Amino acid sequence: MSEEFLKVARAAREAAAELAPLPRAPKDRALRAIADALVAHTAEIVEANAKDVAQAREQGTPEAMIDRLRLDARRIQAIAEAVHQVADLPDPVGEVIRGSTLPNGLELRQLRVPLGVIGIIYEGRPNVTVDAAALCLKSGNAALLRGSSSAYSSNTVLVRVMQEALERTEVPSGAVQLVPGLTRDSVKELMRARGLVDVLIPRGGASLINSVVEESTVPVIETGVGNCHVYIDADADLDLAVDILINAKAQRPSVCNAAETFLVHAGVADAFVPRALQALKDAGVTVHGDDRIAAYGEVEPATEDDFLAEYLSLDIAAAVVGSLEEAVAHIRRYGSGHTDAIVTRSQQAARRFVSLVDSAAVAVNASTRFTDGAEFGFGAEIGISTQKLHARGPMGLPELTSTKWVYTGEGHLRTSAGTVIPRSGA
Amino acid sequence: MSEEFLKVARAAREAAAELAPLPRAPKDRALRAIADALVAHTAEIVEANAKDVAQAREQGTPEAMIDRLRLDARRIQAIAEAVHQVADLPDPVGEVIRGSTLPNGLELRQLRVPLGVIGIIYEGRPNVTVDAAALCLKSGNAALLRGSSSAYSSNTVLVRVMQEALERTEVPSGAVQLVPGLTRDSVKELMRARGLVDVLIPRGGASLINSVVEESTVPVIETGVGNCHVYIDADADLDLAVDILINAKAQRPSVCNAAETFLVHAGVADAFVPRALQALKDAGVTVHGDDRIAAYGEVEPATEDDFLAEYLSLDIAAAVVGSLEEAVAHIRRYGSGHTDAIVTRSQQAARRFVSLVDSAAVAVNASTRFTDGAEFGFGAEIGISTQKLHARGPMGLPELTSTKWVYTGEGHLRTSAGTVIPRSGA
Repeated sequence: MSEEFLKVARAAREAAAELAPLPRAPKDRALRAIADALVAHTAEIVEANAKDVAQAREQGTPEAMIDRLRLDARRIQAIAEAVHQVADLPDPVGEVIRGSTLPNGLELRQLRVPLGVIGIIYEGRPNVTVDAAALCLKSGNAALLRGSSSAYSSNTVLVRVMQEALERTEVPSGAVQLVPGLTRDSVKELMRARGLVDVLIPRGGASLINSVVEESTVPVIETGVGNCHVYIDADADLDLAVDILINAKAQRPSVCNAAETFLVHAGVADAFVPRALQALKDAGVTVHGDDRIAAYGEVEPATEDDFLAEYLSLDIAAAVVGSLEEAVAHIRRYGSGHTDAIVTRSQQAARRFVSLVDSAAVAVNASTRFTDGAEFGFGAEIGISTQKLHARGPMGLPELTSTKWVYTGEGHLRTSAGTVIPRSGA
Repeated sequence: MSEEFLKVARAAREAAAELAPLPRAPKDRALRAIADALVAHTAEIVEANAKDVAQAREQGTPEAMIDRLRLDARRIQAIAEAVHQVADLPDPVGEVIRGSTLPNGLELRQLRVPLGVIGIIYEGRPNVTVDAAALCLKSGNAALLRGSSSAYSSNTVLVRVMQEALERTEVPSGAVQLVPGLTRDSVKELMRARGLVDVLIPRGGASLINSVVEESTVPVIETGVGNCHVYIDADADLDLAVDILINAKAQRPSVCNAAETFLVHAGVADAFVPRALQALKDAGVTVHGDDRIAAYGEVEPATEDDFLAEYLSLDIAAAVVGSLEEAVAHIRRYGSGHTDAIVTRSQQAARRFVSLVDSAAVAVNASTRFTDGAEFGFGAEIGISTQKLHARGPMGLPELTSTKWVYTGEGHLRTSAGTVIPRSGA
């Protein structure tokens, strides 16, 4: 590991130990100091960002990506507002999750505690640099940030401004660190920093996430790959079904909770598919359908790859299924375990679908687009976990914590005959 | 991956999908059928076990390990009793952890669901084969068991008896599987079975656990390495301190929650250390002390390795520290994050120690030996997690589950202007 990397990782580790026991008030003061400093340094941030934007333009980056990269005074104001909102949220640390007095008198509590150092690998959106740092600080964690190299100038200034703001607070400035270096090596270093980094959250495409999962010795929380399905049941209200399908696919196609496949029960295919194809066409969506879908209109032929695809575009795969169970089997085979929806009037079908579909979220008569931390009322979101361990679905502040058991006695000893308390002088 | 391994892993996966939606009653019936079958097949199990014992003896295995390996009618009865106890426990699956009606009317619930297929790598105790299978089944998971090769004959028969018992129940018999093969290759196959296995729980020594953590692409829950500390504060009741120290070290030295180091505040070293050394000597414990401990009596000199050691024997490392903070720094540096205890009459010192020590459990005026699923009232325990992600400390049935979000609407759509419900015909 490079000296450079070790230096920031160790600084984050030390800061994490200092930060962990802090109560809410000093953390909130630090967050508000960061928000104010970002606004105060707007000119400097915009200047650094302009370099990133110019470089991206030189490299022929698509305009949509350049837009995600760009910062201006209004956007910096919005980023600062978001930091104030994180300060407004309750502190998860110290929450007593379980507790009891055991039969032997030991007082047992399970408390939320910070995870420690959280490594975050993310795309070229500089606002994530601040959002992620704020969520980590609020939950008592140090943040080790590895943003896209396309935003390196912006991120460097943003992190420096945050560190300088922290220097005037009780939160150690080392708690926010940018991973140095622009190459893939720095991602590798993060992945091998077991003992220095407690958890790694990769955000981005499937290939990044798969490579992190394969190579990381640091525990990973997978986020954000969404091959979401809408299943139109034999008992569906077809008007609702069309509305939900169009909303799930087309309202914002570039996000992970957008639908990528729809499945129609054969019993309603005659009535539903022609209407769906027309509505999708009107919404500018290209349909990649199986043979039975193709019987109802002109569609692109669907391959295995289409059913596996997270298009993130105005494309959707489609198939007719013989039963709810066949829909579930399709989702199990091709889905990514993010969000899958059923449209049905049948209580029994809804219950069965919810029970059989093994995904982070299951929607009944609602668009898949609601799987989101803000929609769920979390106030903030670091990502959407599609794994089963630790956190599943939208991750808010509690998902950035671990727990600690505390038990208090008065000299309690464990013996083969049960608990013995020699005397109570404690 | 070998065909043999893929066959059992796929069978477990299929069984897991069938098992997951089952409610409590059929799972409990299946567990009781297993318990009865084990007792009914006592002769066959004992015969297979005798082969393992004979082979272990031939290989010069220490008597203590042979004792852990041995099964007789009484022990099989006890194993069956333990299965009945798991049946008596509440079912974690389906528990609603959080839930609300969102401002837009969506009904949101977070439910406990099974993890899926749980791989367990464990030591040469055939009772674990049944315990682990029972805990997995109760929590709706399929178990993929990789026991020690020293118990292979016993495990083969135990798993066959369990599978045959399941064939007469609603739980698919494929839900309990023994990983075929005796070599380390089968451990490697388990570690690379991402997509087939949802979580891997290695039980055993630090070297096994480290190699699994390094090499596994399946998410891992680390268990059981315990370098536990007892810190005797300046304000300690020294009578209690001696009792707790001796209990934590000597009551059962071979377990992970036994103490491996004690740290004494310099302010009470004169009064405490000579008494502690005498009491430890009387209990047959060898002390590996630093220079300041050595000033009070004859001890082995302590090296770095002693402070890092999980002795699991009648040995203990010891050091004098200048302050509570120095004790915490020692624990952070050398500890394994399992259980650390403070003995003190001071509320402030207790509060500070609890806040600063970053371990799965912190004990105040109590022996470290209480960090245990049964002592905590869990009814059963699959291991003690020393990692921060997903589960920390003793793991009972809820720790063998994931969660699923379910939201139900009546045609809820997400728009840039907020939620829209076109009509309510759902």
